[in-house]
Amino acid sequence: MALKGVLRTGLVQLRVLDLDKSLDHYRKHIGLTEVGRTEDGRVMLKGNDEFDHHSVVLRLAETPGLDYIGLKVDTKENLERFEAETKAFGFEIEEIAPNSDQPGFGRRIAVKLPTGHRIDLYSEVELAEKHPGIKNPKLWIEEPKGMDVSCFDHALLYGPNAKEATQWFVEVLEMSIVEVVKKEDGVENLAVWLSASNRGHDLAILDYDKPGKLHHISFHLEDWNAIGHAADIMGQYNISIDVGPTRHGVTRGQTIYFFDPSGNRNEVFCGGYFYYPDMPLRVWDIEHVGEGIFYYDKVLNERFLSVVS
Amino acid sequence: MALKGVLRTGLVQLRVLDLDKSLDHYRKHIGLTEVGRTEDGRVMLKGNDEFDHHSVVLRLAETPGLDYIGLKVDTKENLERFEAETKAFGFEIEEIAPNSDQPGFGRRIAVKLPTGHRIDLYSEVELAEKHPGIKNPKLWIEEPKGMDVSCFDHALLYGPNAKEATQWFVEVLEMSIVEVVKKEDGVENLAVWLSASNRGHDLAILDYDKPGKLHHISFHLEDWNAIGHAADIMGQYNISIDVGPTRHGVTRGQTIYFFDPSGNRNEVFCGGYFYYPDMPLRVWDIEHVGEGIFYYDKVLNERFLSVVS
Amino acid sequence: MALKGVLRTGLVQLRVLDLDKSLDHYRKHIGLTEVGRTEDGRVMLKGNDEFDHHSVVLRLAETPGLDYIGLKVDTKENLERFEAETKAFGFEIEEIAPNSDQPGFGRRIAVKLPTGHRIDLYSEVELAEKHPGIKNPKLWIEEPKGMDVSCFDHALLYGPNAKEATQWFVEVLEMSIVEVVKKEDGVENLAVWLSASNRGHDLAILDYDKPGKLHHISFHLEDWNAIGHAADIMGQYNISIDVGPTRHGVTRGQTIYFFDPSGNRNEVFCGGYFYYPDMPLRVWDIEHVGEGIFYYDKVLNERFLSVVS
Amino acid sequence: MALKGVLRTGLVQLRVLDLDKSLDHYRKHIGLTEVGRTEDGRVMLKGNDEFDHHSVVLRLAETPGLDYIGLKVDTKENLERFEAETKAFGFEIEEIAPNSDQPGFGRRIAVKLPTGHRIDLYSEVELAEKHPGIKNPKLWIEEPKGMDVSCFDHALLYGPNAKEATQWFVEVLEMSIVEVVKKEDGVENLAVWLSASNRGHDLAILDYDKPGKLHHISFHLEDWNAIGHAADIMGQYNISIDVGPTRHGVTRGQTIYFFDPSGNRNEVFCGGYFYYPDMPLRVWDIEHVGEGIFYYDKVLNERFLSVVS
Repeated sequence: MALKGVLRTGLVQLRVLDLDKSLDHYRKHIGLTEVGRTEDGRVMLKGNDEFDHHSVVLRLAETPGLDYIGLKVDTKENLERFEAETKAFGFEIEEIAPNSDQPGFGRRIAVKLPTGHRIDLYSEVELAEKHPGIKNPKLWIEEPKGMDVSCFDHALLYGPNAKEATQWFVEVLEMSIVEVVKKEDGVENLAVWLSASNRGHDLAILDYDKPGKLHHISFHLEDWNAIGHAADIMGQYNISIDVGPTRHGVTRGQTIYFFDPSGNRNEVFCGGYFYYPDMPLRVWDIEHVGEGIFYYDKVLNERFLSVVS
Repeated sequence: MALKGVLRTGLVQLRVLDLDKSLDHYRKHIGLTEVGRTEDGRVMLKGNDEFDHHSVVLRLAETPGLDYIGLKVDTKENLERFEAETKAFGFEIEEIAPNSDQPGFGRRIAVKLPTGHRIDLYSEVELAEKHPGIKNPKLWIEEPKGMDVSCFDHALLYGPNAKEATQWFVEVLEMSIVEVVKKEDGVENLAVWLSASNRGHDLAILDYDKPGKLHHISFHLEDWNAIGHAADIMGQYNISIDVGPTRHGVTRGQTIYFFDPSGNRNEVFCGGYFYYPDMPLRVWDIEHVGEGIFYYDKVLNERFLSVVS
Repeated sequence: MALKGVLRTGLVQLRVLDLDKSLDHYRKHIGLTEVGRTEDGRVMLKGNDEFDHHSVVLRLAETPGLDYIGLKVDTKENLERFEAETKAFGFEIEEIAPNSDQPGFGRRIAVKLPTGHRIDLYSEVELAEKHPGIKNPKLWIEEPKGMDVSCFDHALLYGPNAKEATQWFVEVLEMSIVEVVKKEDGVENLAVWLSASNRGHDLAILDYDKPGKLHHISFHLEDWNAIGHAADIMGQYNISIDVGPTRHGVTRGQTIYFFDPSGNRNEVFCGGYFYYPDMPLRVWDIEHVGEGIFYYDKVLNERFLSVVS
Repeated sequence: MALKGVLRTGLVQLRVLDLDKSLDHYRKHIGLTEVGRTEDGRVMLKGNDEFDHHSVVLRLAETPGLDYIGLKVDTKENLERFEAETKAFGFEIEEIAPNSDQPGFGRRIAVKLPTGHRIDLYSEVELAEKHPGIKNPKLWIEEPKGMDVSCFDHALLYGPNAKEATQWFVEVLEMSIVEVVKKEDGVENLAVWLSASNRGHDLAILDYDKPGKLHHISFHLEDWNAIGHAADIMGQYNISIDVGPTRHGVTRGQTIYFFDPSGNRNEVFCGGYFYYPDMPLRVWDIEHVGEGIFYYDKVLNERFLSVVS
């Protein structure tokens, strides 16, 4: 097939302060479906358009934030190749046994990034019990609920040594840099958007002093109208909105940033162009970063820059 | 990069009976931009979101229909590999010199399919003069016009020996079969949808007695609302609609089929799911083909099955 | 207030062949809310954006069709005035006691039209238990369900002597003729669209040989996107679609015609212009009736013209 | 007809600091059509869905702001009645001769409100040269441009003695109070929304210390998608956005507030419910005013409260 190696960001484990409130948020309002619970009480969720066993895991903790992100690889062979090349690249690796802490998942390779984040690579996941139809499929398998997000879309990570981490994503994982925002010097990248396919980004990384920070995890919506419906739900149920509805200059996607009950930033995202690796890199000057991030207002609010989990 | 080999259907040369009427249709109503004319009077057009020199070529002829479709390959090396493997596969090949009949295009390999269609492979195309911005890019480079299609999306080909052709797309070009409609026997495929990326299809092929036929070429729109706007334009300017606005069961895309002034069927298309090669194949029985093609009415009109160019 | 006399079509009693199937249709799929049942087993329903006690009543019967339509009048005084003027106009009247067959409704004046239809006039209705919020109102009072129609919108009646009936709507009820379709002679009206407010139509009447026929009752949707969502529900649950999604030339509204399980035609409708009585009458020739009714295809299907209940 | 007396806000004369920049804004971006110029150089504009000669007039001046708003009355008789009743009510009146300063307009009655605003009443206006079609009308008379607003929708006025002014709108002009925001005392109204028809508001008035101030004039759009397109145009052409895209709790309309080049606030507005005078008044406490004005963020920005022209 023409899509090889890394396929997508397929897994995220998130720390939350209250499971019931979080389930109300992620299940009832965002519209994820609960797949089940792990022995140690974590909740597994998935989007209605996802085939894999689960994609979002909520873990009860003292502080909000990100445990790790998982990237799905197309084959065992490519997983082993990435493992070897990552060692050669010099990043620390940990082996996670199949069906250990993530039910339904095969072996995982946990990679420690110099940004303080952990990225898991894996190639095998069981088919979810409730997956989209494959024999004369209907449009949906169960009534749309809440914002009705289709899948986990991407994450934006904040941390130091973003340049070195980006190198690994590009040189080892063969992901593409789609867009960048330059620093004042006009040379170094403040932020990069990385894609493994046609999608505008699977991951984005911003160079930041504190390690291992999460700016947001994003869920995919069909279009601007679904963004409007999501905003109605946020207004109706007093979900705290950070910014939006608006449009990004970067990726051209339409968006709302909001917070889950634990203070983790979420995004609902849609639109943008089809990315292809033969496209020129899109570059934003620091003077245009406001327009790049929020195309309408063209200003970054303080909260957007400083609040991370 | 994780997108390798065939990237997309990037070129189509179409036969039309009247250039002025066709330009009114493709430029003013569909919203393509004219790039220029070839020495022999063919018109080169492109979508506003495309970077390559051009994607649609109109050739004045006695009969409407398709001259050929072009697939863009990521590298020269892969192009040469596909060339060798195609010869080994047993399909006839013709070499087209760089910048010969398609200005801005590098060398092409013209492959003769047993369906009677010609598929050109190429890896190098000059950047269009009017391409999307890359330095602090604005949302659009020129005012949206007409249906404002973003790019050439895909084509549906009708011809004999579809099975053998499909084998070549899968085994040599490494494209994926996304969905199929089975014949009465429940074994052979009546139609297959082929993708090289996340998109639901770059090409579809239907097994048909007459060779080299075109069912439709499709252009991409942003969402259902753009489909509605396109329908308004068709109604306003008396463009002959075949079917729609409606939704496909196959790919779940939203669509309108209509005709250009020469009788070539066009489609405007949006939506559908992100395809990944780790997804199960979606299969439609012949009894459900009506629902598969038109999810709302669930019936194929005679015109849809019999009118090709 | 500036809106005086007749306010809107606020009530419809419909005959259905099966209550359970009908409730699945009108409640689960169309999204009306059940208010309760009458002593004789009729089901009272309302749209989520309606304040009055109920607007749609389903009556179990041997044949589908319309019992009557009710028009709400702003005051008792105007109701009495309309009563007197209707007698003077020569139409038969029947008095319906308050809270008799329609719980929550005050006295009604049932008027017998020469088209064979019955129109009830009333000015007093109790507030529904579940009505839109009035103190710091939220966007909705309960989760949107199904097509999520906001209210009963209008009806199209087929019957003889449409001219005389129209005269009564205009001269006695002071409603306005918004648009007309002319007959072959270019003089007489084949169909008229009547409005009591800014809305494109509260009622439409088509001159037809059989008396008392219903072409369709229509429910209001927010926009074209809601029309698309409604079509998805029709496709998902195999609701029989007559025509659409499409747009009317007349009123410029966007629409889908479909059938309830008893064969009564329904419509979901949105859009169109704000009508004002100082606007010129919009006139359609019989040659343009196809475009007037269906702006995209420009052709009336046989079913549309002949199937009534 | 059932719509009597005041029909709508049909005229606004605005002060601008630069005609060319203002025309770029109101004509090219907002999408109004220029009707012509008055002898003293004012520019007359109209929306594509309006029949009257013009609705928006731009006057070059030293300071931005509102000259006056005009309300169209259905008949001469009602205009004369309103004139007499207004004198009796005690408001000062000035007679404006037909075809004097507003070409195409019949006699006007200029009423001086205690809020410092001038409201003109008129009943006769010539049909615009470019009006929507009335014989087999097409969807539009000319290609949509810019935000493609359909008509002038309403205005929000800031000034003292709002209570007395409101009394006149209700008692003399027979307009309805649709929604109110209460002051801290929970008794007096801080702001009222006034309608003459089904529309959520034709005018709104906020009690304010400075007289004759304009908060915004609003233009009508079809739906949320048109709001998104309008936002794209604002982003593309660096139009200064105040707030939005968002939704109001009051009227439930969807909106963007932005500024014209002279500092006059504009709004594009769509949606909301059909208003009827038999609906209960919707009341907002001062504690909920944030949610009432901006349903998503639930906070009023300082600019919204203090910047008027």
